[in-house]
Amino acid sequence: MNISISRISQLRGRNVVFFSKFSLLQFIGLAIVMQFILSGEKLNTWIQINIGWGLAITFCVYSCSKTSGGHFNPAVSFAMFTLGRLSAKDLVIYCVVQTIGAFIGAIGAFGIYYDQFVKYAGDVRTIVGPHATAACFCSFPASHLSNLTCFFDQVAGTGLLVFFVCVIIDKRNGIPGAAHPFLFGFVLIMIGTCMGMNLGYPINPARDLGPRFFALFIYGSEVFTYHNYYFWIPVIAPIVGAVLAAWSYQLFIGAHIPDHNNKAHILDEAKIPLNDV
Amino acid sequence: MNISISRISQLRGRNVVFFSKFSLLQFIGLAIVMQFILSGEKLNTWIQINIGWGLAITFCVYSCSKTSGGHFNPAVSFAMFTLGRLSAKDLVIYCVVQTIGAFIGAIGAFGIYYDQFVKYAGDVRTIVGPHATAACFCSFPASHLSNLTCFFDQVAGTGLLVFFVCVIIDKRNGIPGAAHPFLFGFVLIMIGTCMGMNLGYPINPARDLGPRFFALFIYGSEVFTYHNYYFWIPVIAPIVGAVLAAWSYQLFIGAHIPDHNNKAHILDEAKIPLNDV
Amino acid sequence: MNISISRISQLRGRNVVFFSKFSLLQFIGLAIVMQFILSGEKLNTWIQINIGWGLAITFCVYSCSKTSGGHFNPAVSFAMFTLGRLSAKDLVIYCVVQTIGAFIGAIGAFGIYYDQFVKYAGDVRTIVGPHATAACFCSFPASHLSNLTCFFDQVAGTGLLVFFVCVIIDKRNGIPGAAHPFLFGFVLIMIGTCMGMNLGYPINPARDLGPRFFALFIYGSEVFTYHNYYFWIPVIAPIVGAVLAAWSYQLFIGAHIPDHNNKAHILDEAKIPLNDV
Amino acid sequence: MNISISRISQLRGRNVVFFSKFSLLQFIGLAIVMQFILSGEKLNTWIQINIGWGLAITFCVYSCSKTSGGHFNPAVSFAMFTLGRLSAKDLVIYCVVQTIGAFIGAIGAFGIYYDQFVKYAGDVRTIVGPHATAACFCSFPASHLSNLTCFFDQVAGTGLLVFFVCVIIDKRNGIPGAAHPFLFGFVLIMIGTCMGMNLGYPINPARDLGPRFFALFIYGSEVFTYHNYYFWIPVIAPIVGAVLAAWSYQLFIGAHIPDHNNKAHILDEAKIPLNDV
Repeated sequence: MNISISRISQLRGRNVVFFSKFSLLQFIGLAIVMQFILSGEKLNTWIQINIGWGLAITFCVYSCSKTSGGHFNPAVSFAMFTLGRLSAKDLVIYCVVQTIGAFIGAIGAFGIYYDQFVKYAGDVRTIVGPHATAACFCSFPASHLSNLTCFFDQVAGTGLLVFFVCVIIDKRNGIPGAAHPFLFGFVLIMIGTCMGMNLGYPINPARDLGPRFFALFIYGSEVFTYHNYYFWIPVIAPIVGAVLAAWSYQLFIGAHIPDHNNKAHILDEAKIPLNDV
Repeated sequence: MNISISRISQLRGRNVVFFSKFSLLQFIGLAIVMQFILSGEKLNTWIQINIGWGLAITFCVYSCSKTSGGHFNPAVSFAMFTLGRLSAKDLVIYCVVQTIGAFIGAIGAFGIYYDQFVKYAGDVRTIVGPHATAACFCSFPASHLSNLTCFFDQVAGTGLLVFFVCVIIDKRNGIPGAAHPFLFGFVLIMIGTCMGMNLGYPINPARDLGPRFFALFIYGSEVFTYHNYYFWIPVIAPIVGAVLAAWSYQLFIGAHIPDHNNKAHILDEAKIPLNDV
Repeated sequence: MNISISRISQLRGRNVVFFSKFSLLQFIGLAIVMQFILSGEKLNTWIQINIGWGLAITFCVYSCSKTSGGHFNPAVSFAMFTLGRLSAKDLVIYCVVQTIGAFIGAIGAFGIYYDQFVKYAGDVRTIVGPHATAACFCSFPASHLSNLTCFFDQVAGTGLLVFFVCVIIDKRNGIPGAAHPFLFGFVLIMIGTCMGMNLGYPINPARDLGPRFFALFIYGSEVFTYHNYYFWIPVIAPIVGAVLAAWSYQLFIGAHIPDHNNKAHILDEAKIPLNDV
Repeated sequence: MNISISRISQLRGRNVVFFSKFSLLQFIGLAIVMQFILSGEKLNTWIQINIGWGLAITFCVYSCSKTSGGHFNPAVSFAMFTLGRLSAKDLVIYCVVQTIGAFIGAIGAFGIYYDQFVKYAGDVRTIVGPHATAACFCSFPASHLSNLTCFFDQVAGTGLLVFFVCVIIDKRNGIPGAAHPFLFGFVLIMIGTCMGMNLGYPINPARDLGPRFFALFIYGSEVFTYHNYYFWIPVIAPIVGAVLAAWSYQLFIGAHIPDHNNKAHILDEAKIPLNDV
């Protein structure tokens, strides 16, 4: 019983940490995008967004690795749930916390760069047009993109993320645990260089939906109705991509690694195994 | 006998993995180039192509290291064959699989960015001209380049790749195995900064020929006849460069490293020795 | 007594090293900014400033790690003081030495690029305007920024720095000591991509105040009176941010890491624990 | 006697390796600069030159570490000579070999990009002017720079290089040997971001003088007489900077590291101690 109490308090601790950590990630990430857009693409370039987001993931995962694990992405959490590594209850808690955290991070970034919003766009707050700023918060596809393309784009982008995360954390691939968060960041940089053109690689339901709720207060309901109710695509498609990728890894790679106890520690515990440094 | 059966099944497993892995590499790599070209060189810059391709190699090699080894390049496979590290049969299988994989990767990348092709070039699909897009798939030299220069460019580029891969995987140089794929990526970044101006460093027969077959369906037979049948150069020249470089390493460096058993494990097993982490 | 004498001489040695090291960091850092501004933003871009400053921190910390510890930032030193890891006397010495070091570094960078100042701006030395050069030395907010925004910008920027430094150096997170200075540099790169738009992330009282004293001789007293006496903000706000972040780490992360002796070596000794490599 | 014969043959082997390695470094490095200049600064940007040269050093040092040591720079060799780590005879051999190697590397890079020279500048081969190409080979200061500034620029740039190389290779700083060449590359990247504006950071007598001899055949004697016989500055100033920095490291840092046997292995053997990985 003592143990279960300590476990509860530990879980609660986890969530507190988690919550603040996810706000932090979003605060950093949205500030990166704002620096790109609000400086007229002068102070950040695309590669800088890639590097910035990559490092934000790296350091946020480092800071969580010993407390709540590396869960920053509901799509990844859901994939872990389908693999039996996460309970349904934890999954729900994680998704809610991640989305609220993203909402709070959006408030912070908006606060820090409020003066720049005013300078860049005056009082105008629009989704498209010459001084559009809504893309500071969440993704909006250009008009020449079909929602079908958007869907597959998000499946592919999140698929790449989850597949390579599986590669990195599979202990049998022999990558030292302390290097995992660093490599996660580089995976994100890579995705930004190849899957960024259509939507800017949200590939994370919470990262897109949380700030979209915040944007609702600024830009109105169009943030949800825009482009034929596009908003659900970066929520659902990443989950599809994550599940496909996690199971592909198991079938195509995990099952073929020719050593040791084959099924024991695939994606072991779904947390970053920093312990084995 | 048991062993040979298990070996066969292992080899078949290898090829399946291999095949999907090479498609994946090409999918990522071609998407990087498309993001560069189809955004009007706005969303990617040259350094981003370098970094993107480098990281794509890094993570694809990580994902293969325990199953099929790091063979992603027929030129490298051929060099290993001349060193007696690969059988003729395996060589043929590898080359075919790598090329088909590249073809499939091209389909995927074209699908994800089909809307962008339409936006950038409408219905026009040309190899040269203001809205040329064929370079999204494979290399086409500018008109001021002679095919002789192209040949030496590919010899040099692939030579650099293979030489430094030999340096990295030679156990006597003391680089930890887990760092090898990471360093391979950085070698590719370096080559992109120095050997990219003439042809965009294909330096890989499968990477260039596979997508060229796909481009045949879109751009017609000119993808093969262009520039006085240039297409064979990024197929043959990389092989010449790879062989020259692998043997140069053996003669100039390998034979002079003054310790241990001198010829035992040079380029040991031609696979990434992640085992010795 | 012998010990205390040796300790004094060691401390003095520390300060000498420290002093020259901080000059070196500022020399490098200011030269990076000058290369950006004086080349008309051609030879450096924003990402290069991020990478350059990041690496400057990395290598300066490597060079100090065995002698004076990694103290390069009075805000960090003050946070360590509030945590009881630094005596009041040492704190004062550190802050003074850091600021004088920055002053001297500014002299060096100005000397190396004096010809470029003349070419870029002739005899004109102004804080704002088409050939303004004062930003080579210290931060000056644009007119559309309120000092309140500046204050929170500096709190946030320094907070991110200190928080992630705490993550990195907490031994329980299992990051090898030899990698710490390298990761510090990457934290700085990340901050440059997200918190650079308002003020250019000074996030270090000595880095801003020391060169500002030097700029006083060139640009006159306006360097202090500019923007309603803005100058005190990058001195005080980083201290607030550093203290908040260090304590947040303790409360939200440090206290929740579920292993070993929980309070023993949090932020252990406030120096880079390279010993435990 | 046997030993001395084996040592001679080893030394000769060293020089052969060395020689080809230095040609290789210069081949890569000059190709990087040519890609920058001859593409009209489109295919490479300044950061790419920094990264490219950095990685070139990294991988060339990796390839030499077990045979001839990491000597690629006569200035560094001279500093080692003043520290008693290199014999006068070896110093002379090294300097000559490094310079000839650079000459040969220049031939190769010119060959690979000959078509691009023709496209960029036609038959014109000039040191200054709109289609000047001589900077592809060696440094030429802009007219607004005094030779005195150039001298101190080279002292400072080489000083930074040597100082941080000393930091990295000092075993007491605890940086694993396998990471040294990687960090050398990052030091070079850092120098490129801060000391590149005046002269483009040659900071290596052989790197500048060898290709200058080659440029003599193309651009005539002006490559030596230009800017009041500037050519000797990147030959002599780096040596001054290297000696100052190596001794500064000894006095300010080396002597203050408070552990173990203090003078035993400072800059131990002047080669990259990869042995201790």
